[in-house]
Amino acid sequence: MVAENVTTESPALAPAVRKPRGERARRSRRGKLPGRQDWSSWPHYQSAAAGFRGYWYPVAFSSQITGKPTGVTLLGERIMVMRDKGTVYALKDRCPHRGVPLSYGSQQFPGTVSCVYHGWTFDLKNGDLVAAITDGPDSPICRKVTQPTFETAERLGMVWLFVGDGEDAPPIDDQLPEELVDNPAVVGARIQAREGNWRFAVENGYDEGHAKYLHRTALWRLFKPMPVWNETRIEQRGRWIYRVQEKQYWDAEFEGLGRWTGQAWYKKKPPKTVTNIGNTSGHREVNPAIAAQEFPGFASVSMPGVLRIAYPTFIHYEFYVPVDADNHLYVGVMANFASGIKTLPFYAKYLGAVRWLFHGQFSGQDKWMVEVTDAPPERLYRPDDSLLQWRKLAEDVTEERLARLAEAGLTPEDAEPEIVK
Amino acid sequence: MVAENVTTESPALAPAVRKPRGERARRSRRGKLPGRQDWSSWPHYQSAAAGFRGYWYPVAFSSQITGKPTGVTLLGERIMVMRDKGTVYALKDRCPHRGVPLSYGSQQFPGTVSCVYHGWTFDLKNGDLVAAITDGPDSPICRKVTQPTFETAERLGMVWLFVGDGEDAPPIDDQLPEELVDNPAVVGARIQAREGNWRFAVENGYDEGHAKYLHRTALWRLFKPMPVWNETRIEQRGRWIYRVQEKQYWDAEFEGLGRWTGQAWYKKKPPKTVTNIGNTSGHREVNPAIAAQEFPGFASVSMPGVLRIAYPTFIHYEFYVPVDADNHLYVGVMANFASGIKTLPFYAKYLGAVRWLFHGQFSGQDKWMVEVTDAPPERLYRPDDSLLQWRKLAEDVTEERLARLAEAGLTPEDAEPEIVK
Amino acid sequence: MVAENVTTESPALAPAVRKPRGERARRSRRGKLPGRQDWSSWPHYQSAAAGFRGYWYPVAFSSQITGKPTGVTLLGERIMVMRDKGTVYALKDRCPHRGVPLSYGSQQFPGTVSCVYHGWTFDLKNGDLVAAITDGPDSPICRKVTQPTFETAERLGMVWLFVGDGEDAPPIDDQLPEELVDNPAVVGARIQAREGNWRFAVENGYDEGHAKYLHRTALWRLFKPMPVWNETRIEQRGRWIYRVQEKQYWDAEFEGLGRWTGQAWYKKKPPKTVTNIGNTSGHREVNPAIAAQEFPGFASVSMPGVLRIAYPTFIHYEFYVPVDADNHLYVGVMANFASGIKTLPFYAKYLGAVRWLFHGQFSGQDKWMVEVTDAPPERLYRPDDSLLQWRKLAEDVTEERLARLAEAGLTPEDAEPEIVK
Repeated sequence: MVAENVTTESPALAPAVRKPRGERARRSRRGKLPGRQDWSSWPHYQSAAAGFRGYWYPVAFSSQITGKPTGVTLLGERIMVMRDKGTVYALKDRCPHRGVPLSYGSQQFPGTVSCVYHGWTFDLKNGDLVAAITDGPDSPICRKVTQPTFETAERLGMVWLFVGDGEDAPPIDDQLPEELVDNPAVVGARIQAREGNWRFAVENGYDEGHAKYLHRTALWRLFKPMPVWNETRIEQRGRWIYRVQEKQYWDAEFEGLGRWTGQAWYKKKPPKTVTNIGNTSGHREVNPAIAAQEFPGFASVSMPGVLRIAYPTFIHYEFYVPVDADNHLYVGVMANFASGIKTLPFYAKYLGAVRWLFHGQFSGQDKWMVEVTDAPPERLYRPDDSLLQWRKLAEDVTEERLARLAEAGLTPEDAEPEIVK
Repeated sequence: MVAENVTTESPALAPAVRKPRGERARRSRRGKLPGRQDWSSWPHYQSAAAGFRGYWYPVAFSSQITGKPTGVTLLGERIMVMRDKGTVYALKDRCPHRGVPLSYGSQQFPGTVSCVYHGWTFDLKNGDLVAAITDGPDSPICRKVTQPTFETAERLGMVWLFVGDGEDAPPIDDQLPEELVDNPAVVGARIQAREGNWRFAVENGYDEGHAKYLHRTALWRLFKPMPVWNETRIEQRGRWIYRVQEKQYWDAEFEGLGRWTGQAWYKKKPPKTVTNIGNTSGHREVNPAIAAQEFPGFASVSMPGVLRIAYPTFIHYEFYVPVDADNHLYVGVMANFASGIKTLPFYAKYLGAVRWLFHGQFSGQDKWMVEVTDAPPERLYRPDDSLLQWRKLAEDVTEERLARLAEAGLTPEDAEPEIVK
Repeated sequence: MVAENVTTESPALAPAVRKPRGERARRSRRGKLPGRQDWSSWPHYQSAAAGFRGYWYPVAFSSQITGKPTGVTLLGERIMVMRDKGTVYALKDRCPHRGVPLSYGSQQFPGTVSCVYHGWTFDLKNGDLVAAITDGPDSPICRKVTQPTFETAERLGMVWLFVGDGEDAPPIDDQLPEELVDNPAVVGARIQAREGNWRFAVENGYDEGHAKYLHRTALWRLFKPMPVWNETRIEQRGRWIYRVQEKQYWDAEFEGLGRWTGQAWYKKKPPKTVTNIGNTSGHREVNPAIAAQEFPGFASVSMPGVLRIAYPTFIHYEFYVPVDADNHLYVGVMANFASGIKTLPFYAKYLGAVRWLFHGQFSGQDKWMVEVTDAPPERLYRPDDSLLQWRKLAEDVTEERLARLAEAGLTPEDAEPEIVK
């Protein structure tokens, strides 16, 4: 199950024949060590430290974006976001005149934003410099400068931006989880700025192994029993890969060490039967919108880093948004496929419990691990097949995108774009 | 008016023929972009990130320099300043023994300073090591080490240091604004450590455009009306360049956008006639010392970064003192050419209003801009002719100085000097 | 007395013939300046910024190391230390799986530590991966990964770690000061994390000159008179070098400057006779354990940075422990060679005075100097022979160690070791 780029140790170096200290030859740590692994098998993934371009990303709640400019950083780019007559616009957040952030500016004329320093005024729709206030109406520079713009959308109560390489943005609904596009839903969401690379956040989210061990101390686990370990396989369907759990072990005897279990008298007991919706129980009625998806597995992931955890009555999503190589936004969304009066229990459940136990304490343990993970080098084990398949997905999808860009004559950029007329 | 090193866009790339997204070819941002500009036209200016050597700079109020050593940083050099029998002395602030700052030391013998660590004792006048206390009176190292010294002066209630490249310091009065040397004056001054490169501070100070827009919200502007835009030219006279305002526009109609003005019912009305003293009013009697200067323009600048703003009854100066590449001292001086009893209203005006409104809130807006300016790259516009002429002045004057140094057989240094016997 | 790598100035550049300013040619500071010195004469010392490998170092009080893992940094390496059934164990503090510190983990089975993230479980004795909890009892990775371990010891109420290059650790008693191994003693100790390179800490400790001058203001000095300067020589015996004081001068007349002395009416008077035990007084009975050592000098130092200051009734030690290139641990130990009821006065003296006056304020002045010392370049003087001899000792001893390693076929590492089976 583990991909072959996880090299195995030479039998000649196995513990049984370990030489006594002092006699043993030491290998240089400068070359590639046996049992070690870098990320060179996934070159696009390795170079995507600041995120993959060509996708929509949520950056703020809709209510946070008003007529007063706001500065955000996405994929290493500083972007000014503001609202005008109800529509959200986004421009590169650096006035080309002297480099001052446009997000420090304000609106002086309808449909425009003006830089705080000298009143350079840009059309929000197309980025054109339409006035340089302090140079008067006949300023020769007008319409000779255009500020890069970004396409925007609003979904799930949030503002989304598209960062690409000059290609047309695909419809955002093509990228959102299908069930969120096709069904009415109520959502409870949390956006939190977090330290650590976005890839560690995705990998932590999709990683099967840690939930059973790291989170054993989370209050959420009082109501959510988890096994010691699973037998698992990864299955791809469309743009998602699913973790399919084939067998679960609720406790285990480790030879020479002792017995280990995540169970306790004060925790909810494990379910008698197990399904792939909700992972751990088959006794509840599954919401029809969720059942209709026929998810092969409880947990799935898609580009550019969207995690979906399906429960019988709701779905939990995590969008990991690259801010820069060292920071990301955690966007947790709990969705309930209901409408009208039926949404009330969801609000009660979300605000009364989920927000604090799951989006709070439980997810805070993940936050901690993403901050301190330090790889490569790394040494993967059997459950990390989920990580390998995710990296492969990212690599394959990126190969396809680059082929499309090349066909369109576009050159991908690693960092901030400059649109030049 | 804008110098030709501001390149213009190719007509083939003008907005009218902008190709639709996706079809449009994107330029690499790695080369030099059209409409962009670096500072390579001014090589001396570009390399003077930590300031120009060969000038006098104010570093502290005279009252701050006492018999207890003080450490200052100027042009990237750490310098110890202290007073002995009324005279100010300055030595390089690094004991050559083990690198400990001399400014942590104290005076153990008249006319000397001793390092806190081992009592190495230097003559304040010439930097000679005259005793190494912990090695006794016959220490062989005495008089074999000399600490670099800096020439000092006191003017306008402040201590000034000369940082050069081994040349004799010119008389400080040759560098001060002429009217301050020739006339009695009372001054109100503020020294503030600020972030940001000193060049952005000079450019912000001499930049005509921003005052009308950035400062429109300053309380100072309640009493100081400013136009929307001006017609301006730059005129050099001696070592100063002047901004001469030829025509002022108090409001403006921007086509397709609307009308814009800095005026408001609660602000002082614009003057009927405009002069180049005080810029905005011709009705007040001009102080004879100021009138005698026959300044061609309201605002002028000279090396190494001295701004002079002439009002009818006082002159405001800003000295931008390079601390290092990322920090500078703002030294604001308001001078009134009066003496005796006539100085009392100035003190009242300075302490009651100018210090808070001008040296405080108004200047605080400049402080903010200097912190966030980020150039090059930059894209200059018509009013930036003032910046271009200032950079040209710096470049020309530096060429002359380097020629003088070469003639004297001296080699300029980019950083800390080492005087070796 | 000063070694010949302290170059002397050319007579042609001596003060008497100093040319007037402006005429004088200035030397480039880019080459090696006369009278300046780098550390290239001691290549091993120069490259040992993060410490010398091959030694035992104290890292914590024994009481601080419990069954809950603790992370420490030693010679730039992050190490997890914990106690199991009374014995202290140390493993490299980075789980090989995904780089998370093992010190965030906990004990799940006897004799092991488990990583907090996925429950990878390592044998504390040999570092073997004995279980990967979340992969079940049959996890194929078990016993295929071994975490580097470090040898540990407990002495003087502290935990000590050996960091080497694969060689067997020598017995810790071979490295401790001999008198501490052979005699019962009570100790008062202080461990303090300090900024600054460990070499400046050793050099400050062994440096004769600064105590007389820097510490003249310490309260400790009220009871401990010190001369203005000494005549001194360095004598090696075994692995220690001793500072032997031959003549002491209690005050001094500096020609043209004045008289200087560390004495004052409120300070204890200098002793009539001087010995090399306690340095400044011959009238007290010397403790037999101390007398038996026949120390040739008051102060001595040995690798890897152990200072010993012998007083008549106790000995003060300082262990300077490299954390990384910019930080060290100060470990101050006051030892009294007594047992039983005779130890009571020591506790009273240590807790009532020594801890505050000596390990506190006096040593705090040293802390300050180690933080601000900035060498090379440096300019040494006669008393710095102590520094030169210490550097020579470090260099010689390291040469010998490297020869032993080469003979054993081991390659020294500059940084973190990787033990590979």
